[in-house]
Amino acid sequence: MTQTKKQLHLNLFLMSTGHHEASWRHPDSTPERAVDVHYYVKLAQTAERGKLDSIFLADSYGLPPTIQYKVLQGLEPFTLLSALAMATKHIGLIGTASTTYNEPFHIARKFASLDLISGGRAGWNIVTSTGNTTAFNFRDEQLPEHSMRYRRAEEFLQVVKSLWDSWEDGALIIDKQSGVYANPERIKRIDHKGEHYAVRGPLNLPRMPQGHPLLVQAGASDTGKEFAAMAAEAVFTAQNTLQGGRDFYSDLKSRMAKYGRSTDSLCVLPGFCAIIGDTEAEAKEKEQELHELVQIDYGLYRLSNLFGIDLSAYPLDGPLPYADLPQTEQINSQKGRHQMFIEMAQQEKLSIRQLMMRTASSRGHFSMAGTPLQIADAMERWAVAGAADGFNLMPPSLPSGLDDFVDKVIPELQNRGLFRTDYTGSTLREHYGRSAEARPGVHA
Amino acid sequence: MTQTKKQLHLNLFLMSTGHHEASWRHPDSTPERAVDVHYYVKLAQTAERGKLDSIFLADSYGLPPTIQYKVLQGLEPFTLLSALAMATKHIGLIGTASTTYNEPFHIARKFASLDLISGGRAGWNIVTSTGNTTAFNFRDEQLPEHSMRYRRAEEFLQVVKSLWDSWEDGALIIDKQSGVYANPERIKRIDHKGEHYAVRGPLNLPRMPQGHPLLVQAGASDTGKEFAAMAAEAVFTAQNTLQGGRDFYSDLKSRMAKYGRSTDSLCVLPGFCAIIGDTEAEAKEKEQELHELVQIDYGLYRLSNLFGIDLSAYPLDGPLPYADLPQTEQINSQKGRHQMFIEMAQQEKLSIRQLMMRTASSRGHFSMAGTPLQIADAMERWAVAGAADGFNLMPPSLPSGLDDFVDKVIPELQNRGLFRTDYTGSTLREHYGRSAEARPGVHA
Repeated sequence: MTQTKKQLHLNLFLMSTGHHEASWRHPDSTPERAVDVHYYVKLAQTAERGKLDSIFLADSYGLPPTIQYKVLQGLEPFTLLSALAMATKHIGLIGTASTTYNEPFHIARKFASLDLISGGRAGWNIVTSTGNTTAFNFRDEQLPEHSMRYRRAEEFLQVVKSLWDSWEDGALIIDKQSGVYANPERIKRIDHKGEHYAVRGPLNLPRMPQGHPLLVQAGASDTGKEFAAMAAEAVFTAQNTLQGGRDFYSDLKSRMAKYGRSTDSLCVLPGFCAIIGDTEAEAKEKEQELHELVQIDYGLYRLSNLFGIDLSAYPLDGPLPYADLPQTEQINSQKGRHQMFIEMAQQEKLSIRQLMMRTASSRGHFSMAGTPLQIADAMERWAVAGAADGFNLMPPSLPSGLDDFVDKVIPELQNRGLFRTDYTGSTLREHYGRSAEARPGVHA
Repeated sequence: MTQTKKQLHLNLFLMSTGHHEASWRHPDSTPERAVDVHYYVKLAQTAERGKLDSIFLADSYGLPPTIQYKVLQGLEPFTLLSALAMATKHIGLIGTASTTYNEPFHIARKFASLDLISGGRAGWNIVTSTGNTTAFNFRDEQLPEHSMRYRRAEEFLQVVKSLWDSWEDGALIIDKQSGVYANPERIKRIDHKGEHYAVRGPLNLPRMPQGHPLLVQAGASDTGKEFAAMAAEAVFTAQNTLQGGRDFYSDLKSRMAKYGRSTDSLCVLPGFCAIIGDTEAEAKEKEQELHELVQIDYGLYRLSNLFGIDLSAYPLDGPLPYADLPQTEQINSQKGRHQMFIEMAQQEKLSIRQLMMRTASSRGHFSMAGTPLQIADAMERWAVAGAADGFNLMPPSLPSGLDDFVDKVIPELQNRGLFRTDYTGSTLREHYGRSAEARPGVHA
């Protein structure tokens, strides 16, 4: 074991019964606990036992029309993560908040509060909202167009960062004798007036332990990658081949220099769905067991929604109707995933049904069934090949897939010197090798 | 001890170092812990030890310009209450959320999530935002006018309730065998299109344990009282005399019939700042000690802001400049408090300085310094006289004022048969004598 090896960063992508779309139907799953906080406490504590960097909650602001077929995603992120902060000590807590349907002041404040509550463990997955299911819950007749959403996201982030920076070091005096609680000279208005937002500030909370929360992003379109290169410190990405992972990795990191950023200030974390068995056969059997629970109606809905065309009108065992599919440029959401699924189907010559199964475990993220050694091999291979700085772990089913990973794969990674055997920092930023965000321009 | 006496309902109004504006300067206070979650955990646990119905967090969306003189109010309510839910078992958790600068979908969802996390202990203090400090953080050049804010609040509440009701009983099927997770027939769109909001729904969380959170309100203007009579189940009110309390109580309850509501479906909880000493002299001494820490600059700012006129231009030991004060109708925030302070100054013939001290403990709420017996006497007197169904406890300083109340006043109230000796229900609604909110029109 040597310490010179590059260390992996591991995030657990928490999602109710797991990432396989049929996981809730598995005999071991407990879908009735999808909104039970104690279920998530147990999962977070298991992840912390495994010394993982962080847990992460995705989010959306609408009920999927597929609720008939698929378990709820879970509780609301700010409330759930604050609760989990009290039941854990070290692990980072990354929540998703959309820049499309929120106010910058509220988001800046909630992350500051979560960071204070957790002692410096908050992370923000910055997203733009997709889908009219969401838009209709917020007055909009239709979702804003893709590039407009990203322009708004950029301004939103700028406002939020300014609010976080509105309290300088030394702002709090707390001198009972003189009666001076704070120095107003060091608590600044931000006076932002931009295209979409006008926010005066300052924030009504002091500077959080981390300065800023860890900034996370997952956009896969060209605009999304540019945004990540400019702003993100960790990036979740869906890559289904090692080569695709390397291309994404080098593409993304090569975009960073023009923003004055070094490539090691951003961790690329491909999604990874590991189906773990003590033998390869057992792992494959587990995978097959889950695939057999897939519901065709749900799968058709999911793919139709992504491709922007009703696939139920085409033979299930025939190819994708390539000629009829809208072009990636024409669709207004998840452009990256759209393109990936078309390429996957073309390269692997998949029927609609096969594409459905191929993406049932993890929606296009890298997925493999194997032994703990094989899983660790694959992770090391991706890291060495320059396709990953770590992984966004997406257990196919929970809690069993997480238990397997922590009990069987983590020790193997630790033996290889690829992963920490204990936490060395106390904040999420430290787990990811980032120092606390210094307030720009402060010379206190 | 008899069980036939009317039972008091007690809420703890949590505010950093306490309600006396100078409490943070007291030698016993810990103002450096105003954003420390563990400080609030301890307070909540003390309140729970005292079997209180609930704790409550006020809120505002801007930094008061008086940050130089006064401790921060604390952490953000949804994040803090979710954290406190994990550190307590019984006590209700009431958070403030404004209908002026939020989206109904987000608020409906966060309260549902908090209610699920806490096992049915969420309450919503429904407010409209006041003050341009807030408005400037949300694009608005100026705060919407008073009656418009209440029209918006009414529609906001209607949308939020519809979202909470969007999941009928029996919506969740969770049948692994057939693959049916939910019955979409029992999860309804709300299709709200009103003057201010258009929200399609349904909510993306199942029905919360309480059905609805306890609905709390604190408006004191005529419009505010009408809103409370229509919608609230508990009302916080600032009353500085028993007679004022009786008038408010009967006024508010008399407005309920026209909404088809019985008077016992709403608890009136006057704010109560009890300064407790083992002797009356000790209590008065404590009060005096706090008053001596008051900062004139802060007091002048607070009163000037309320009256809408710069009082620093007038002699501190002279009367309020009644002729120069704007009329209550002309001001656009806190109309009730405005009127109360003028009446208080007139009736008690207070100088500006005296009004400042008179309102330093609790901003116009009923305040008294006395022994545990005297405090309990006063509470019983208000309850018997028809001025209160319970109290909104506002300890002048924390944690000491709460410790005193729980250790010395609660046992006295219990001895008199006025207050529970243990929790009998498990939800906040049950603590306040309300059953779970039934979904209207369901005959499942």
